[in-house]
Amino acid sequence: MPNYIKPLREEKVFKDPVHNYVHVQDRTIWSLINTAEFQRLRRIRQLGTTYLTFHGAEHSRFSHSLGVYEITRRIISQFERNNYPDWPVEENMVAMCAALLHDLGHGPFSHSIEEAFHMDHEDWTCKIILGDTDVNRVLREVSEDLPEKVAAVIRKDYEQEIVVNLITSPLDADRMDYLLRDAYFTGVNYGTIDIDRILRMLRPYNGRIVVKESGMHAVEDYLMSRYQMYWQVYFHPVTRSSEIILRQIFRRAGELYKEGYDFAFLPQPLPGLFTNELTVKEYLKLDESLIQTTFMQWSDEQDSILSELCCRFLHRRLYKYVEVDSIHPETVDKIRSSFEKVGLNPEYDFEIDFPTDLPYDVFLPNSTKRGNQILLLTKQDKLREISEVSDIVRSITGLHRGKYHLYYPHHKLAEVFSRLPQEIASIFPISAD
Amino acid sequence: MPNYIKPLREEKVFKDPVHNYVHVQDRTIWSLINTAEFQRLRRIRQLGTTYLTFHGAEHSRFSHSLGVYEITRRIISQFERNNYPDWPVEENMVAMCAALLHDLGHGPFSHSIEEAFHMDHEDWTCKIILGDTDVNRVLREVSEDLPEKVAAVIRKDYEQEIVVNLITSPLDADRMDYLLRDAYFTGVNYGTIDIDRILRMLRPYNGRIVVKESGMHAVEDYLMSRYQMYWQVYFHPVTRSSEIILRQIFRRAGELYKEGYDFAFLPQPLPGLFTNELTVKEYLKLDESLIQTTFMQWSDEQDSILSELCCRFLHRRLYKYVEVDSIHPETVDKIRSSFEKVGLNPEYDFEIDFPTDLPYDVFLPNSTKRGNQILLLTKQDKLREISEVSDIVRSITGLHRGKYHLYYPHHKLAEVFSRLPQEIASIFPISAD
Amino acid sequence: MPNYIKPLREEKVFKDPVHNYVHVQDRTIWSLINTAEFQRLRRIRQLGTTYLTFHGAEHSRFSHSLGVYEITRRIISQFERNNYPDWPVEENMVAMCAALLHDLGHGPFSHSIEEAFHMDHEDWTCKIILGDTDVNRVLREVSEDLPEKVAAVIRKDYEQEIVVNLITSPLDADRMDYLLRDAYFTGVNYGTIDIDRILRMLRPYNGRIVVKESGMHAVEDYLMSRYQMYWQVYFHPVTRSSEIILRQIFRRAGELYKEGYDFAFLPQPLPGLFTNELTVKEYLKLDESLIQTTFMQWSDEQDSILSELCCRFLHRRLYKYVEVDSIHPETVDKIRSSFEKVGLNPEYDFEIDFPTDLPYDVFLPNSTKRGNQILLLTKQDKLREISEVSDIVRSITGLHRGKYHLYYPHHKLAEVFSRLPQEIASIFPISAD
Amino acid sequence: MPNYIKPLREEKVFKDPVHNYVHVQDRTIWSLINTAEFQRLRRIRQLGTTYLTFHGAEHSRFSHSLGVYEITRRIISQFERNNYPDWPVEENMVAMCAALLHDLGHGPFSHSIEEAFHMDHEDWTCKIILGDTDVNRVLREVSEDLPEKVAAVIRKDYEQEIVVNLITSPLDADRMDYLLRDAYFTGVNYGTIDIDRILRMLRPYNGRIVVKESGMHAVEDYLMSRYQMYWQVYFHPVTRSSEIILRQIFRRAGELYKEGYDFAFLPQPLPGLFTNELTVKEYLKLDESLIQTTFMQWSDEQDSILSELCCRFLHRRLYKYVEVDSIHPETVDKIRSSFEKVGLNPEYDFEIDFPTDLPYDVFLPNSTKRGNQILLLTKQDKLREISEVSDIVRSITGLHRGKYHLYYPHHKLAEVFSRLPQEIASIFPISAD
Repeated sequence: MPNYIKPLREEKVFKDPVHNYVHVQDRTIWSLINTAEFQRLRRIRQLGTTYLTFHGAEHSRFSHSLGVYEITRRIISQFERNNYPDWPVEENMVAMCAALLHDLGHGPFSHSIEEAFHMDHEDWTCKIILGDTDVNRVLREVSEDLPEKVAAVIRKDYEQEIVVNLITSPLDADRMDYLLRDAYFTGVNYGTIDIDRILRMLRPYNGRIVVKESGMHAVEDYLMSRYQMYWQVYFHPVTRSSEIILRQIFRRAGELYKEGYDFAFLPQPLPGLFTNELTVKEYLKLDESLIQTTFMQWSDEQDSILSELCCRFLHRRLYKYVEVDSIHPETVDKIRSSFEKVGLNPEYDFEIDFPTDLPYDVFLPNSTKRGNQILLLTKQDKLREISEVSDIVRSITGLHRGKYHLYYPHHKLAEVFSRLPQEIASIFPISAD
Repeated sequence: MPNYIKPLREEKVFKDPVHNYVHVQDRTIWSLINTAEFQRLRRIRQLGTTYLTFHGAEHSRFSHSLGVYEITRRIISQFERNNYPDWPVEENMVAMCAALLHDLGHGPFSHSIEEAFHMDHEDWTCKIILGDTDVNRVLREVSEDLPEKVAAVIRKDYEQEIVVNLITSPLDADRMDYLLRDAYFTGVNYGTIDIDRILRMLRPYNGRIVVKESGMHAVEDYLMSRYQMYWQVYFHPVTRSSEIILRQIFRRAGELYKEGYDFAFLPQPLPGLFTNELTVKEYLKLDESLIQTTFMQWSDEQDSILSELCCRFLHRRLYKYVEVDSIHPETVDKIRSSFEKVGLNPEYDFEIDFPTDLPYDVFLPNSTKRGNQILLLTKQDKLREISEVSDIVRSITGLHRGKYHLYYPHHKLAEVFSRLPQEIASIFPISAD
Repeated sequence: MPNYIKPLREEKVFKDPVHNYVHVQDRTIWSLINTAEFQRLRRIRQLGTTYLTFHGAEHSRFSHSLGVYEITRRIISQFERNNYPDWPVEENMVAMCAALLHDLGHGPFSHSIEEAFHMDHEDWTCKIILGDTDVNRVLREVSEDLPEKVAAVIRKDYEQEIVVNLITSPLDADRMDYLLRDAYFTGVNYGTIDIDRILRMLRPYNGRIVVKESGMHAVEDYLMSRYQMYWQVYFHPVTRSSEIILRQIFRRAGELYKEGYDFAFLPQPLPGLFTNELTVKEYLKLDESLIQTTFMQWSDEQDSILSELCCRFLHRRLYKYVEVDSIHPETVDKIRSSFEKVGLNPEYDFEIDFPTDLPYDVFLPNSTKRGNQILLLTKQDKLREISEVSDIVRSITGLHRGKYHLYYPHHKLAEVFSRLPQEIASIFPISAD
Repeated sequence: MPNYIKPLREEKVFKDPVHNYVHVQDRTIWSLINTAEFQRLRRIRQLGTTYLTFHGAEHSRFSHSLGVYEITRRIISQFERNNYPDWPVEENMVAMCAALLHDLGHGPFSHSIEEAFHMDHEDWTCKIILGDTDVNRVLREVSEDLPEKVAAVIRKDYEQEIVVNLITSPLDADRMDYLLRDAYFTGVNYGTIDIDRILRMLRPYNGRIVVKESGMHAVEDYLMSRYQMYWQVYFHPVTRSSEIILRQIFRRAGELYKEGYDFAFLPQPLPGLFTNELTVKEYLKLDESLIQTTFMQWSDEQDSILSELCCRFLHRRLYKYVEVDSIHPETVDKIRSSFEKVGLNPEYDFEIDFPTDLPYDVFLPNSTKRGNQILLLTKQDKLREISEVSDIVRSITGLHRGKYHLYYPHHKLAEVFSRLPQEIASIFPISAD
């Protein structure tokens, strides 16, 4: 047994509603889970504001990270059991650590906060792994270069390409866990995939993780599930509405901060967030509790734009929306100017949204990046990209059903509605309710 | 149709992982769900600190409250469909509102906070229903006396006894929902009960909700599930450990506050919590975000007892425990004094716990309170208390398997362990690990 | 209440693994279930020989028929509860009876037997309903014309077109039940559909059952599930192999019967099956027990072709297959003649199969038959065919991934393999195993 | 690798709704599954006539046997992975074969047929394994003494006691599979057990399979599930009613055979069944198809008792029952003689049944047979019988809630009811229905 593997005296398990049990056999994994940095993920929800649409979606990145680790552990242990020559067993520990830690740098409501403050959670993950942290210390106990190796996998520039491909690919443990987990917690059954079958079909092959051809139907089912989950859950317009409120809060607070506004409540490390000068130690204090508490305090702030937005978020008084197939930029300008004329705020009382702006990826087989394809391994030991073989994958590839959504505060708009020009008013479904 | 029922133009549904859909047909229920006070329940976890033991248990009282409402709605609609003469249909609205709102007064980590500050969530539920709140306004729109009626049901002194019995009894919608929901989110399968069958067997009868005799086995199964859930989940010693830390934090902060300690962070409404002078408006600002954020800030407080406890809670560095069948009060005294001699804090570094102190109830058929029994309705139209008829219920009745648990900080104790008297040391399972 | 509805004193339920409970409230339905003709469906498997591929698929048409009835009952009761003007409530009984009885005429292993003997189970269903049977008597107790009405629905020429559409359409109770049930019993999870949501979205509209537009995604998911089930389960090549054996047995026995062969075992009503002269009473004696018992006895018949085929079926010694994209008729001829030359039987030792010949339907929106489309009802009260609106439905419409499968007896072929011309031999994957 | 293990080139799997997949890695296991004798189990239902009560219970002993094998495989592979010294790895093959084949000798509707003809399925299992069969040949290919070893395990006299204990004990793979499987197919959710947890807790220890003490609660849950399944499913009075009819048919046919009655239909091997002279080859022809087909033909027999009973069974016209706490033998005599006086058949129109006569076992910790106990392995490496430690197990131990059930043909009894003496009539719940 390699000296960097320190098995626990007895396997530990976590009871998990998705995988039944998460198994920990290695002392390093156990120690990583118990670091302050990993425990912080309990205070970051996996699906951001989605719980405002699907009330069950209150699960954290902590459980998701354990799930990704567990799937990776199962893949690796199967590779090992079958002695596949293309899998480098000496990379087991790097792979499991990268799987467990891949989301470590997520901030509170990360999609919105990253957009508002131009941050990137992957950067933060690497900073935490490489910085003065418990996670770094635990990794270095195994070997001095382990932190750098794990960070390289997360940055996707690790020299052992197959490890990167295992952790990040269209069929990786991350995606498999979130489909299953998000389906479970939302209660939506589109995400049910036959993970046992998919795992049994994975093969390490020439620096890549590929799928035995006989697993094609299971992969088709997985891609269709993903497709449905994107449109039913991840891009749900009500969730988008709450994300818009979030971004508006961050935007407004940032503006006020720059103007030198005197916040009644501005605990550490929020100032650094506005100035983009957070240290790792400060960043780790950011969690969703802090954001929610701040919003609660800000709901009494003097600035009425900020306080109203915070109330909207906390009490779920979201903007309504109307869906349109397309909209001309000139129309957008007209809406804003008409809104301004009747006393609405053109920058806060109207937002336009188009789902594909979202940082979620949809499977694109034609992507030029090598790791972005799902490859089937034929009986003749040849590789074929799945959409060449599968009609159903080809047919959904590139399908795009995004539409424009226009968001607005229903009651405020209703009050001034009669004063809007007919051309603008007709866009919004406001009537005597 | 009674004038207080205002059906929605179209039924609304919430996707729920436990009941599949929660159906809202009435405008009043819809409006109650959308009040700020009800939305606050999203920021209070259903199972307090249990997520530190079962990581899936991150669900909120919001989802549970919807679930209790849904079960109640189904019971009532079945009573109505069958025209059972003993069910007063004019009470439908009171019953549904009481079901939805019964947990409204829960504070953050309520079991611990209630114990630390001598509060009672039922009192707060009534205060919120009767006070100057959105919930009160929505109820009064139906009729001026509706808030008082709903509060009376929650206080268990409503004149229509059958409504009280529907909402609070050993087989009520509250218990049925939490068994199913807590089992679902923890992933533990002990809580799976055949709720469809139980619901079909319920009958309104002479001021009580009783069970048709042929439903006896389903009730047995329900009681066994509850029994298992109590011991597997609700009384889990690791959860108890985290509750002990919580109570210690509140205790320490309270002591410091009384001493006039200068907290670097003490946002509203915390001072009122310490002095027991919270208004309804202040109370509603209390949520788990605020508590967690406060602990995060306090982890840098000067007072080392407070800061250490907060770190323990946030980073899940819980006390270890040892289980003993019984312990003599003198031994407890000796432990404390020995701990003090070797430099430990006798009040914070040792706690003794006995699960039945917990505010969860276990079914006790011999209770003198009339509403606390499960009654079977025989084919001959007679009532029989279930443990008279069911061997299995009789056999588990009064079973008590609680043991004493002694909690202590493992690493701190290990450091001074060699200096403890043998008699005391032998109690704790500390060794070269 | 209409006089033809005779409610049971107390609702009866059947415990069902798919719908949890099947509810029977009407005395006529209860009596129909208890007829000898309906109980016979317990001896006919829902999926014919599929249990030889998926061992869990041992469920009968009895459970499926109960399931179709239950879904229909739920749809109707929802239509009634909402007082939809387009639903003729006086047709409730006709609809429920047709749902329950729609498969009454299925024979043993019906797809194979219908093909072998040119029968049609729908004809037999009508004959049983209209003949001298218990089912007919129970229906006539309600009204003299009820048998004819029910038969008309099944023949799809009932004057109330909406009842026909409810019972037979691309989104009918039959299809919904079999998807869920076949997925449950095979253990394949492709068939999981959100039936609650689909049912809530159905609307009676102008003589048709249509779907509210907001249910489009649930319908997409249903169509994709069906697509996957067809290719994963219903068209599975191993199941096809066992159906080929079945058909060969029937063919051989028919040939022998015509030749006047003296069967050692030929119980009633088999002779009538061969001569196509079965009475209703005789037909009702046909079940899968009889067929299997006959095969068991025939496995000792003198005729070696027949006895070998029966052994193959009973002991699951199926033909192997090779999949080809296409095959030229001339090649087929060459295979047969080469087989004959080396002593194989060209008619029994080689079969060619193309899945779409199967009597299962796949959704075809462009079908000219009006009832074959799924229509969405927009908010503007317009109807749109689903593939006009849904990219995903359009993309899978007309997709055809059927391939030719060549079936052959592996061991027999292997023995003579070396004597086959290379051109023919190269088609079959026979090698030193 | 021991020379008797011949791994398949590639693992084979069976899709299983209970275990998701059944994995076959060994060629011998694969060959055993493909024998005619094992395939015959597809034609024997796992739960006999239970499908007449729970229509989903149509699953066969074939699927159950695969499940028992799969659980055993998982236990063994865990023992091997952990290198537990007390597990003899050279017994792996014996254990897996015994698990797979343990039900091989079951006849059609075995509980009833064994009672009627004084047979024992375990004897037949051994005869098939040791006789001139495919199973015997496959086993002998591994080693000449393997058939005898496997038979010894099934007879419970194999010298390696731990293998017997693995295959037959109160917590064996057989019981775990049938609880899960019967719960799944009936749809009853009492049988849901946490099998993953139980398996992880099993330990080979000093010739026994024991349970780690920390698995106690999972075992409690398992025992309670079993308790509920016995009373809800296995002892269901409607199932008992159908078994009574079955036994009456066999009894009547046996009487007639002895009397030299000329059966219009009596295929092989039925005569040997009546005279108790079946060879192994003949026994293997017995399956439920044959029994059902025979009943179908007998429903036209001249003997009216036999034909009526066969109709009752096929068309599910079962006897009704009344439950009584106890009944005096004299009363039974009076019932029979009164029945005779009014023209009923005292031997066929009345049956008395007491569930514990059934050949199902209930856990009895005080049994003197060593293998009948569940032992917990404490942290101090001591063994404790579970009911010593678990209050809940102690409380349900020896609980007996069986009652007497009196069975009778409702309609026949109703016709003559007015002529029965009041004392007898009052026992039966017959009234104007």
